[in-house]
Amino acid sequence: MKILILGIDGYLGWPLANHLASEGHTVSGVDSFYRRDKVREMGSASAIPEAGMPRRKAGFERNWGYPLSFWQIDIASAPDQLPNVIERTEPDAIVHLAECPSAPYSMKDVWSAGWVQFNNVIGTLNLLFTIRDYAPDAHLLKLGTMGEYGTPNIDIPEGYFEIEYRGRKDTLPFPKQAGSFYHLSKVHDTNNIAFACRTWQIAATDLMQGVVYGTRIDAMRDDPRLLTRLDFDEAFGTVINRFVCQVVCGEPITVYGSGNQRRGFLPLRDSMECMTLALENPAERGEHRVFNQFEWTYSIKDLADTVHRVALNLGLSPRVLYIENPRIEAEEHYYDPDRNGLVDLGYVPGIDGLDAEIEMMFEDVIEHGTRILNQHRDVLMPKIKWDGSHDG
Amino acid sequence: MKILILGIDGYLGWPLANHLASEGHTVSGVDSFYRRDKVREMGSASAIPEAGMPRRKAGFERNWGYPLSFWQIDIASAPDQLPNVIERTEPDAIVHLAECPSAPYSMKDVWSAGWVQFNNVIGTLNLLFTIRDYAPDAHLLKLGTMGEYGTPNIDIPEGYFEIEYRGRKDTLPFPKQAGSFYHLSKVHDTNNIAFACRTWQIAATDLMQGVVYGTRIDAMRDDPRLLTRLDFDEAFGTVINRFVCQVVCGEPITVYGSGNQRRGFLPLRDSMECMTLALENPAERGEHRVFNQFEWTYSIKDLADTVHRVALNLGLSPRVLYIENPRIEAEEHYYDPDRNGLVDLGYVPGIDGLDAEIEMMFEDVIEHGTRILNQHRDVLMPKIKWDGSHDG
Repeated sequence: MKILILGIDGYLGWPLANHLASEGHTVSGVDSFYRRDKVREMGSASAIPEAGMPRRKAGFERNWGYPLSFWQIDIASAPDQLPNVIERTEPDAIVHLAECPSAPYSMKDVWSAGWVQFNNVIGTLNLLFTIRDYAPDAHLLKLGTMGEYGTPNIDIPEGYFEIEYRGRKDTLPFPKQAGSFYHLSKVHDTNNIAFACRTWQIAATDLMQGVVYGTRIDAMRDDPRLLTRLDFDEAFGTVINRFVCQVVCGEPITVYGSGNQRRGFLPLRDSMECMTLALENPAERGEHRVFNQFEWTYSIKDLADTVHRVALNLGLSPRVLYIENPRIEAEEHYYDPDRNGLVDLGYVPGIDGLDAEIEMMFEDVIEHGTRILNQHRDVLMPKIKWDGSHDG
Repeated sequence: MKILILGIDGYLGWPLANHLASEGHTVSGVDSFYRRDKVREMGSASAIPEAGMPRRKAGFERNWGYPLSFWQIDIASAPDQLPNVIERTEPDAIVHLAECPSAPYSMKDVWSAGWVQFNNVIGTLNLLFTIRDYAPDAHLLKLGTMGEYGTPNIDIPEGYFEIEYRGRKDTLPFPKQAGSFYHLSKVHDTNNIAFACRTWQIAATDLMQGVVYGTRIDAMRDDPRLLTRLDFDEAFGTVINRFVCQVVCGEPITVYGSGNQRRGFLPLRDSMECMTLALENPAERGEHRVFNQFEWTYSIKDLADTVHRVALNLGLSPRVLYIENPRIEAEEHYYDPDRNGLVDLGYVPGIDGLDAEIEMMFEDVIEHGTRILNQHRDVLMPKIKWDGSHDG
């Protein structure tokens, strides 16, 4: 299958390129490299050194036996550059990862919020027009987030549900109550994509993904050029990744508020597997197919305890610190999302992998990243607050 | 009450400024003048000549006895210019009309779609941050659209509804299925505003307004400087306004598809009355109050017949032409939206005003606009199609 990955240089994009290539697919990619810039803007760096694109391309070719076609394009600002890429790559599927995934960054100030929504919403809008006009049969695989749903007091279906109201029935999009301007940007995307599917007969799979953690997939082999980045700053470091990095540089694991906030999580290898399943079993033309993509739900407190336990077993000296929640969110809430679509396609989630995955992360971070972490440990404590106030 | 109107130069903004001033409020305003540019871009002009802002300001001062403070600012591009306006005007309420209201314009091409969503979504986002930081007690009155809801097969409540699902209950936002990238931009706004209300305790009223028609309100008196614009091109002319203009220049009234599409409508004077009621009875801090704002629902076919009948009575020679629908939308559908919130505040909708209002429109357009209409009659037939194909 010919697969074009937008955002191929990112945390998910680069391992996905290698995973798909290892499965025999022909991969090409686009990236604006904004993520490298924004992490620098946060005063941070990837804990695991990430090769530049020329080295990544060379590593890709060496391992998979064909050259990686790559274009540096900002799809939000330059929609006119996408058709050429489509014509050159003739993709069967387009994986859209070219979005800014940071809730805290989107809450930093008016400029960051506007940039995140511009980058994500307008980038996706431009892609939808491009698919309509240049690749109408291509399957769009889009990364949404479980955070689009918020924490309603009812079960969370996969995108749509049948409801009865005042004696009449309809199947409608599930209401979204996202918790940051980043999460909202993904809600906006979902609404734009659903419209494009029903109006232009685009085939789209919208993955409501949980929080991804981990450093490894098999397709990385032992080639450092195939490793992915690992961020730990408050904006781009997701929770388990950040906890592991905190322990490695001797800082406390910071739990926001009570830690009873419950979310869906999945390891990097499961994210790759789920995306591949969705690609190999595409949506129909006109279908807006929504999958909730996570392995298991955990509370933040559970995760802190797990990282703490694994670290102790490795002879490290972890501490857990409960701090004031910089976010405004429900800390005690009902949470029961469905996760049937990907399981029906063959995904087998389990809960036995968490400890092993975290142990592997510790090995990787200690091997590659201790020096980098120690240079940037001041970015570990949150400074961005949802109410607009600032520390220090 | 001190009221700041963003988009004060528009079809609704200018009459609202005069209406509020006539009721004793202190009005100030902001506009980027994009509407004048975009109507020119469409090859059209306002049927009723609209004075430039210097003449409008002079007319305002002459009629209401105080100078109108006005700033030319693009709030989507220049959020840093809003705080100064807030500090100078200290508004009790901010009416946000600074959006592009055209569904066809948003479906024209990738650039127009992106511009509409950028202008509307980022403009509103910038305003939310400004209110949080500089006017936290100000009441935000935001114009949404009934088109946010689409045409679900169930009743349409006002913004939120209580639902039971798998044995549990919650009050959630009503699902939205908008029918153009413009309508979607308003859905995105609604989601951003609801988040700002619950996270920052902003007080907001979000008006899901029907399609407005008409040329007159009492506060225009007999001063041509107080008249508002009247667009008739396919992008910025709304349906009744366009029908009247079509008859005046001897062109057929164009009904898209079967004409059974049903929507909510209200005359310009009712729009002013409803917005004033909402302003004088503000939302609480933290409340995202949604009102559906329309006088009555009509099918497009009903409206064509009504305009036809009124025109015949005036001795004109109207024709109704059914043409292929350039939009992709359900033409046969259920439609029963609530409209209780504004009625509870004192709004008395009626259906007896439609004929009289349309008769007045004919008088105004024949008096002011026949010459302009005849110069621009080629913009009356739709060329923008929802499927991206183009006429001739």
